[in-house]
Amino acid sequence: MTLSTPPRLITLEGGEGAGKSTVLAALRGALEAAGIEAVYTREPGGTPLAEQIRGLMLDTHHEPAVAETELLLAFAARAQHVRATILPALQRGAWVVSDRFTDASYAYQGAGRGLDLDFIADLERRVVGIRPALTLLLDVPVEVGLQRMRGRGAADRIEGERNDFFERVRQGYRDRAAAEPQRFEVIDASQPADAVAAQAVARLRALLAATEAAR
Amino acid sequence: MTLSTPPRLITLEGGEGAGKSTVLAALRGALEAAGIEAVYTREPGGTPLAEQIRGLMLDTHHEPAVAETELLLAFAARAQHVRATILPALQRGAWVVSDRFTDASYAYQGAGRGLDLDFIADLERRVVGIRPALTLLLDVPVEVGLQRMRGRGAADRIEGERNDFFERVRQGYRDRAAAEPQRFEVIDASQPADAVAAQAVARLRALLAATEAAR
Repeated sequence: MTLSTPPRLITLEGGEGAGKSTVLAALRGALEAAGIEAVYTREPGGTPLAEQIRGLMLDTHHEPAVAETELLLAFAARAQHVRATILPALQRGAWVVSDRFTDASYAYQGAGRGLDLDFIADLERRVVGIRPALTLLLDVPVEVGLQRMRGRGAADRIEGERNDFFERVRQGYRDRAAAEPQRFEVIDASQPADAVAAQAVARLRALLAATEAAR
Repeated sequence: MTLSTPPRLITLEGGEGAGKSTVLAALRGALEAAGIEAVYTREPGGTPLAEQIRGLMLDTHHEPAVAETELLLAFAARAQHVRATILPALQRGAWVVSDRFTDASYAYQGAGRGLDLDFIADLERRVVGIRPALTLLLDVPVEVGLQRMRGRGAADRIEGERNDFFERVRQGYRDRAAAEPQRFEVIDASQPADAVAAQAVARLRALLAATEAAR
């Protein structure tokens, strides 16, 4: 498998409390208003088996996964998600909007846990094979994101990490964006939620126009 | 991580109906009679989390894993098994006897499912890092093994595969043994169970003598 870039695959990335849910709702509203069929999915997850794998990754009550196990569980779920959900949707012409995708493994297991980025790149080539046409990165200072999260109740295993972990994750995402500026739209998610959503929707509309013009 | 060979790690491999349980009991009897502390474990599994991953791999009732997902689940479980169970036991001087280990991924996911053996070797180097000092391979014609299994009740997802899959698995194991004749002891498991167990125990005793002499 070599990496290809399906024109209708969009991903949303960002740390805790970045406001992904609000942006997802706005993207969905814009796609539905334009009469465009899209599949809305998430990672880890996106198929029944992948959601079960997610449960093992985020569980706080049992034996915690070592870093290598966490990484391989993420890619096991992703391999299933790509083949069972994403590729079939793209092949019938639908758009796919995924709440997190491979960039999250570079950020969380690579930058955050310190696993080798070359190994992650090898897993991406061998079992994922696709990169999004557009990745919206909601970037927010760690303190701001964590403060927004605090009202939400019990944290999962990854949400319970320390601040320096989240600082590394944020920097990992920013490094990804800097390396592929044409794919990434970095949005300052410390802005008010409606400004964040408006920037995301404007970028989506530009992609829609370019993709439809290219048909 | 590079591959090392701990002198006290022994694995048992073989297809369905090869008689692994009888051999495991005989190995355990011989180690206990010699007053040697050993940890008896299995794959997929060997830790609570790894046993949960095993459940996802072998489940017949829900969405089946694609080949790549099955491979990554096997190595996710193995990464945990090595770090949480095998290495701590070896480090305190115990022996470890594992019912299946990395060779099973080469045989089942590599030879059986057709996944790239170089990718499996890369996963072994990066997340496993150890190879056994001795691997006992119980080799039996597929028809003989499947006939022995038939009386046992419900088959799991992998046991429900077709004969040509098991033929490829058997050949995969034999290829592994041919490439590393000093590590593998191939035992003709179509022999009576006591003859199979006797050959396994004799090989174990030779390893015990060599390992103790080397101290």
